[in-house]
Amino acid sequence: MNNNDDNIAAPGTPEHHAHLKTLREIVKDIDFAMLTTLDDDGTLRSRPMSSNKEIEFDGDLWFFTYASSHKVDEVEREHQVGVSFADPKTQRYVSMSGAATLVRDKAKVEELWQPHLKAWFPKGTDEPDIALLKVNVSKAEYWDAPSSFVAHAVGLVKATLTGTPASGGENEKLDLSPVTATSR
Amino acid sequence: MNNNDDNIAAPGTPEHHAHLKTLREIVKDIDFAMLTTLDDDGTLRSRPMSSNKEIEFDGDLWFFTYASSHKVDEVEREHQVGVSFADPKTQRYVSMSGAATLVRDKAKVEELWQPHLKAWFPKGTDEPDIALLKVNVSKAEYWDAPSSFVAHAVGLVKATLTGTPASGGENEKLDLSPVTATSR
Repeated sequence: MNNNDDNIAAPGTPEHHAHLKTLREIVKDIDFAMLTTLDDDGTLRSRPMSSNKEIEFDGDLWFFTYASSHKVDEVEREHQVGVSFADPKTQRYVSMSGAATLVRDKAKVEELWQPHLKAWFPKGTDEPDIALLKVNVSKAEYWDAPSSFVAHAVGLVKATLTGTPASGGENEKLDLSPVTATSR
Repeated sequence: MNNNDDNIAAPGTPEHHAHLKTLREIVKDIDFAMLTTLDDDGTLRSRPMSSNKEIEFDGDLWFFTYASSHKVDEVEREHQVGVSFADPKTQRYVSMSGAATLVRDKAKVEELWQPHLKAWFPKGTDEPDIALLKVNVSKAEYWDAPSSFVAHAVGLVKATLTGTPASGGENEKLDLSPVTATSR
């Protein structure tokens, strides 16, 4: 449960590529993120958002939103947001830090649109208030326990028996900025 | 995905009790939370924490931690934290806002200790650096979709067909302060 590991793999190295691949897989697989913003009373507030599954994570996260929603007010006052992905069943977790901006670009809306979003935007891309929240991620960390809950439980038992701390799988920090610059 | 509903059930009403019951059930069931803190560079950062399953949520959340960990530095500088619980498989989500404080109380550590924590604290309650993070929750929201993923998918299809927004289940805000005062 500790994330004080400052061992960041250098961009361009095989380690970095492997970590980025894992991060993308977790994000794609979990899909639903909690977006945390700083409210005007100084409190931190989260809400579930779909990260649109099909889109490959390249350093920017895109969320569909209503431009008039309260979280947009929060983001316009304070751009720094947190995005977390959690799947307790498989013990996989992601923390991302970034700056969010509201993007009202019809072409981008059309490009990123997914049919399942109709549940939240019944008018589809014709919704007048539809917009995108773009989060430019500057830091990311992930916790990737063995892929099944059973395997994780084995890890816990082993640690309890041997007296060495369970690592909780991997906890890797990624510096995404250079990747964003080279991957587009 | 919208949380602008300002319809807060008044404490003492049957609605409020029902919502609090649901909130407790979700928290107990998901167990693992993402704790979001404000870092000294202004970024928001999360990490997974176990909320110790067995303990009933009464307005305070307790997390075991190493007193020397970085998140404790963050919390001591800025008490406001966010705690989110997410179970994308069942589409249940919780957002809590509160103030965190470090508690180094041996009796409380013993009271809250759970055997599975040995995985992270091999020395158990004899660990010299062991401490508790107490989060006094001031605001909570939850999203409680129909209890199975299948039922949720039905909701999406229905919304797509009828052109009315999927509510994503319930989204209820709870004002916990009075409950905290009366339940202890």
